[in-house]
Amino acid sequence: MQLRIPGPTPCPDEVLQAMTKQMINHRGKEFGALLRQVTQQLKGVFQTKGDVLILTGSGTGAMEAAIVNTLSPGDKVLSVSIGDFGDRFANIAQQFGAEVKRLGFEWGTPADPETVRKALKSDPATKAVLVTHNETSTGITNDLAAISAVVKEFDLLLIVDGVSSISSIDLPVDDWQVDVAVTASQKGWMAPPGLAMVSMSQKAWQAYAKAKMPRFYWDLGKAKRFVEEKGNQTPWTPAVSTFYALALALDMLERETLSKVFARHVRVGKAAREGIRSIGLSLFANEAYASNTVTAIKGPEGVDLKKLLQLLREDYGVVLAGGQGKLDGKIFRIGHMGWVTEADIGEVVAALKAALPQARS
Amino acid sequence: MQLRIPGPTPCPDEVLQAMTKQMINHRGKEFGALLRQVTQQLKGVFQTKGDVLILTGSGTGAMEAAIVNTLSPGDKVLSVSIGDFGDRFANIAQQFGAEVKRLGFEWGTPADPETVRKALKSDPATKAVLVTHNETSTGITNDLAAISAVVKEFDLLLIVDGVSSISSIDLPVDDWQVDVAVTASQKGWMAPPGLAMVSMSQKAWQAYAKAKMPRFYWDLGKAKRFVEEKGNQTPWTPAVSTFYALALALDMLERETLSKVFARHVRVGKAAREGIRSIGLSLFANEAYASNTVTAIKGPEGVDLKKLLQLLREDYGVVLAGGQGKLDGKIFRIGHMGWVTEADIGEVVAALKAALPQARS
Repeated sequence: MQLRIPGPTPCPDEVLQAMTKQMINHRGKEFGALLRQVTQQLKGVFQTKGDVLILTGSGTGAMEAAIVNTLSPGDKVLSVSIGDFGDRFANIAQQFGAEVKRLGFEWGTPADPETVRKALKSDPATKAVLVTHNETSTGITNDLAAISAVVKEFDLLLIVDGVSSISSIDLPVDDWQVDVAVTASQKGWMAPPGLAMVSMSQKAWQAYAKAKMPRFYWDLGKAKRFVEEKGNQTPWTPAVSTFYALALALDMLERETLSKVFARHVRVGKAAREGIRSIGLSLFANEAYASNTVTAIKGPEGVDLKKLLQLLREDYGVVLAGGQGKLDGKIFRIGHMGWVTEADIGEVVAALKAALPQARS
Repeated sequence: MQLRIPGPTPCPDEVLQAMTKQMINHRGKEFGALLRQVTQQLKGVFQTKGDVLILTGSGTGAMEAAIVNTLSPGDKVLSVSIGDFGDRFANIAQQFGAEVKRLGFEWGTPADPETVRKALKSDPATKAVLVTHNETSTGITNDLAAISAVVKEFDLLLIVDGVSSISSIDLPVDDWQVDVAVTASQKGWMAPPGLAMVSMSQKAWQAYAKAKMPRFYWDLGKAKRFVEEKGNQTPWTPAVSTFYALALALDMLERETLSKVFARHVRVGKAAREGIRSIGLSLFANEAYASNTVTAIKGPEGVDLKKLLQLLREDYGVVLAGGQGKLDGKIFRIGHMGWVTEADIGEVVAALKAALPQARS
């Protein structure tokens, strides 16, 4: 079975085996050492000297944490959205009382930094900008360095959804002055879902000190205090088994080295796009910004996408994802982050080629 | 190694092995069948015909979910607290803007239903009552049936922390008219931490419809819609591996039968208390209300508790818990919920007996 959706992603056998280790006291020294080690390795992948906190929850939980720890009800926020996850970020901020200005770009295209600049110029009261680094619903990677440069012209807080990029696509948090970046264990990290990770810059902690949105479970200041003052603990019981898995997956990432992991994803992304074109299909995304972790493909004329995905799943053992939100029934997606090689993508393309004629109505 | 803290609790080998299963599509039929099956079994243990929703998070996350899905800022809430977790429930409600009246009872004693009645009579504007069923910090099980009867005289919403009771101590949610009950996978469920479960009565859903506290990740209405309208899905990526583990643990609970599981915990609790007395130690809790999942023991005169717990851990392979909150350094606790027998408790008591003289200063 080839599970090629944009998360959960397949886990290497050793990672799954790591979870057979028995429970330990989450307030004891052994877990403390584990949390310290995992946090240290995460900082390496986030490329930050700031804080990285680990939460038990999904990526959406981490997005909520990013919002409620840095903003107050009534704060003006610019939400830069190029797809379903960008919209979700805006929805969370709105739900917690931020005054959200939505700057949407056509799905399948990246955000334009110049348009972001104009939006920020037109509203000097803006306090923070929400941006998706890699939009999983459309298969686009934003030019986050360029967007960050614009946001920092205005000295604003930059909050980034890096759920499907960090650990697979280069996102140097400190270099790009990202104040809050979030991701989740079931994406490029090669671990099961259940843990979410959030980085916080000094500027983010300054925002935290003033932020008035209600927070309890997601309180990152409390998470930081438990790490620093209680010998590497978490405020609430952590997903211990998922920590075992993530620790092992981080060792594998370190052995491969971050630059080689990024390069592999570049190759795999390219292989996916070339493969798709080679069998006569069209990419949904603007190729100059096509994501190296997920490829979105236009549903070809006369093909029932639901039937195609079912055939692939049942007859070829290849599990792909459909479209999300308003793209449901219009595109389908290949996830290729984490534990994936060009050969895996070759198999996916071969299966697609074989299944396509059968799915034509 | 005997891990006898009140969670995470040891998992049977089969439960740990279940997590070596590879990831699956959380939007596919196989996960849908798993979620449906687990939910069905959970309803059996909760003894409810209402809804049970499963969240990726810890028990504290489920407590937050219970609050934000049923209350609005400014709502008057009576918080009945007999320990650290009761205080936590009040803190969450307060954090999200409820007007919390704290009714605290001496730690080590249960809540008195008559005092609850007086408090409710004195404030007719109260909308909801927060109660801990089993207070893990003090080793007390409240008489929830009696408290519920009082709460229902006033026709109020009853929100219960059953984190360390449900699945180990009888809590018939429907019979006792509990509107919201929460628990978490690492307690009596014999599974690793990472999932939290919440039951919702019809009255709770009526409260949900009016509740104005901000919610996104913990939105139980959304969770219900994803179950009912999307073929048993979760709104956000669930902790798939922990689902595998919980499913297997639920099968084990079913095979043993609920009544026998409860009876086993009664026996184990009794064995813990008798064992403790037999070696000359004193229980912290009022014995008539002593918990059958966790036993709190007074730190004996002249014994350094930190040293005692360290000796037990390092020389006897027995991991116990210290005191929590204001009981830190004053009591220690034996967790005995989930995968535990009287023989396990016998070993713990024997180790304690041997270690005690060494810990006297």
